[in-house]
Amino acid sequence: MEKHKLTPLSELGEFGLIERLTHGFENHQPSTFKGIGDDAAVLHLGQQATVLSTDMLVEGIHFNLAYVPLKHLGYKAVAVNLSDIYAMNATPTQITVSLAVSNRFSLEALDELYQGIRMACERHKVDLVGGDTCAAPAGMTLSITVLGQAPADELCYRSGAKPADLICVSGDLGAAYLGLQLLERERLLFQKEGIQPELSGYDYLLERQLKPEPRRDLLEELRRLGIRPNAMIDVSDGLSSELLHLCKQSGLGCKVFEDKIPIDAMTEKVAKEFHLDPTLCALNGGEDYELLFTLPLADYDKAQANPYFTLIGHMIEDPDLKVLVARDGTHLPLRAQGWNAFEHKA
Amino acid sequence: MEKHKLTPLSELGEFGLIERLTHGFENHQPSTFKGIGDDAAVLHLGQQATVLSTDMLVEGIHFNLAYVPLKHLGYKAVAVNLSDIYAMNATPTQITVSLAVSNRFSLEALDELYQGIRMACERHKVDLVGGDTCAAPAGMTLSITVLGQAPADELCYRSGAKPADLICVSGDLGAAYLGLQLLERERLLFQKEGIQPELSGYDYLLERQLKPEPRRDLLEELRRLGIRPNAMIDVSDGLSSELLHLCKQSGLGCKVFEDKIPIDAMTEKVAKEFHLDPTLCALNGGEDYELLFTLPLADYDKAQANPYFTLIGHMIEDPDLKVLVARDGTHLPLRAQGWNAFEHKA
Repeated sequence: MEKHKLTPLSELGEFGLIERLTHGFENHQPSTFKGIGDDAAVLHLGQQATVLSTDMLVEGIHFNLAYVPLKHLGYKAVAVNLSDIYAMNATPTQITVSLAVSNRFSLEALDELYQGIRMACERHKVDLVGGDTCAAPAGMTLSITVLGQAPADELCYRSGAKPADLICVSGDLGAAYLGLQLLERERLLFQKEGIQPELSGYDYLLERQLKPEPRRDLLEELRRLGIRPNAMIDVSDGLSSELLHLCKQSGLGCKVFEDKIPIDAMTEKVAKEFHLDPTLCALNGGEDYELLFTLPLADYDKAQANPYFTLIGHMIEDPDLKVLVARDGTHLPLRAQGWNAFEHKA
Repeated sequence: MEKHKLTPLSELGEFGLIERLTHGFENHQPSTFKGIGDDAAVLHLGQQATVLSTDMLVEGIHFNLAYVPLKHLGYKAVAVNLSDIYAMNATPTQITVSLAVSNRFSLEALDELYQGIRMACERHKVDLVGGDTCAAPAGMTLSITVLGQAPADELCYRSGAKPADLICVSGDLGAAYLGLQLLERERLLFQKEGIQPELSGYDYLLERQLKPEPRRDLLEELRRLGIRPNAMIDVSDGLSSELLHLCKQSGLGCKVFEDKIPIDAMTEKVAKEFHLDPTLCALNGGEDYELLFTLPLADYDKAQANPYFTLIGHMIEDPDLKVLVARDGTHLPLRAQGWNAFEHKA
C-alpha cells in the first residue's frame, strides 16, 4: 500500500486552511443567516440581526509578554474582537472570555489582565457574560467571542462593494507594525547588552501597537453624515490583504493610489530608521484595526476632506485588476503578504 | 517598600478564580438577562431567549492525543458544549470553533478533527458559523462557543430547585472516569513494556470517555411526560460538585442515597479491578455529561421507574445539610473534589 504524504499546515495559510476545514458543513438552523466568511456571522434571532465573531490570541504567536503589559493585552484582546463587530456596522453587546494559563501566572497577573478586559468592556458598554478558565501546560491562550446587534438592513458585508465605489480607510496605517518593531528592537538590545529600553518620543506608535482603539467613532461620524458603506472590513492583516478580501467577495477589482494612503509623520520617520518603506508597512503591516469601506460615488461630496477617513481609490469592474498606482504612476499588483510573510522580507 | 506576595493560581480552584476575576463587571446591555454563573448565559434578543456557553480544551490537560483519536476529540469538544445548552433545557443552534495548533499537526490530522466536529454538528443540527485558526508554539487548544434557543419560561437554571424537590440524574455515572483510567493504564504499559493495548470487552467505558453523547433525548422524554425540571445542570465535574452547585445557587441543602446512584455493572467491575470505590467514581469522577435535575414532588408518579433517569434523593430546606446517605445508613457530607483532586487520592 502506498503511504500517503501528509501536508504541512504551512502550505495552506490561514484562509486556505479555514476554507478547507469548514468545507462541506451544511447549515440546518433557520436563524443562521450567514455563516463563515465575513468579519462576523449573522443570525436572525429577533427583530434585529445578531452578529457573532471570535478571535484567539496565543502567547509567543500574537503577543510577547516581555513587552506587552497584561492590562494592555486584556484591553487589546477585547478591542480586536469589537473591531470585527464594528466592521459589520453593528454594535457589540456581549463577550465571553476563555483563558488557558500555565501556573507560572499568579492571581495578581490575571487580575491585571482582567482590568484591561474590564476597561474595554466599560468603554464600549459591552457585557462579559461567560467564559472558561483552565490550566495549560505552558503559556497563555485567550479566546474571546463577541456578540453584537444591528438592524438587518444596516449591516455592511465584505461582499457589498459596487463598481466605481469610493474606497476609504479610517485613521492612518502602518503605525502598529512599527510599534512592534520598536518593542522588538528594545527587547533584543536589553537581552543582548542589558541596555534599558528607551522608548520615549515613540508614544504614538507604541499606543497603536499596545492599545488599539476600535473605530466606533467612525460609524457615528458616517451616521452623522448620512452615509452607509456598501462594504466594510477591519484592517487586521494589512491594507493589501483586506482590499483583496473586499475584491474577492464582491467579485470586483480595485485601484488604490499610493500617495493617498494615510500614513502618520511618525510612521514615516521610524520606517526610515528601520530602512523600511512606509507604504509597505501600511500595505502589509497589519494590526491597525482601522475600518476599510466603500461608498457609492454619489457620496463623494459628503465624504470629501473628512478628518475621520481618507479616500484612497475606487472599485473597478474587472475582478482581475487589483492595483496600486505608485507615486511615479506605475501600476503594481496588490498581493496579500500579511504580517508574517512581510516580517520575513524585512 | 514591602514586597507583595503573589498568589499562585492553585490556591483558588477554577470556580474561585472565575468569581475573583469577573467580580465587579457591570452589565450595560438591556439584552443581557443573566451573565456568568449557570451552564450558559441568557440573552433576550428576540421572542425566544438566547443561551450562550463556551468551553476550552487544552492538550495535556483535558485530552491526551496518545489515546484520543482526533475525530473523537472533535466530536467530544462539540458534545461537551452542547451538553451545557441542554442543561438549560434549550436547543443548541450555532457554534464557533477556534483552534490553536503547533506545526506538528498536518492538514490531514485537522481534517480528522473537523470530521468529528461535523458529525456532532449534523447529529444535533447545529451550524458551524465561525471561528479562528491560528498557530501555537506547542500543542493544541480548542475553544468552542455555542448558542442555543428556548422560550424564556422553559429555561432551567441551577437556582430553581425548591425544598422537597426530587433529585434525578439521567443515565449512569462513573463510567467515563474509569474509561480514562483504562486508557491511561494501557498507555503506560505500552510505554514501559511495549505491550500492545488490550481494550476489548471494555467498550462501554471507553465509549463513555471518548464519545460522550449529550442528553437531548432526556429533554424529549421529559417533554413527553409533561415534566419541567425546576433546576438542571450537566454532570461534567462529578455528581458531588454538581449537587453542591444546585444547593448553593438554590439556597438549599440535599440528601442523596448511595444505593440509588445509577452505576453500570461494567463500571462496578472495572472499579474493583482498579481498587476504586464505584460510588466515589460516580461522585468525583466527572465527564459523564449526564443531566442532573430536580422535579416538584408532585411529579413523583410520572417520574417513577423511567428508563431515562433515576431518582437519587431530594432537596432539603437547611442549606447547611448536604449529605450522602451511605448503604449502612451513615450520613456523609458531600464534598466537591472534582476530577483532579480525586485522581491524586486514587
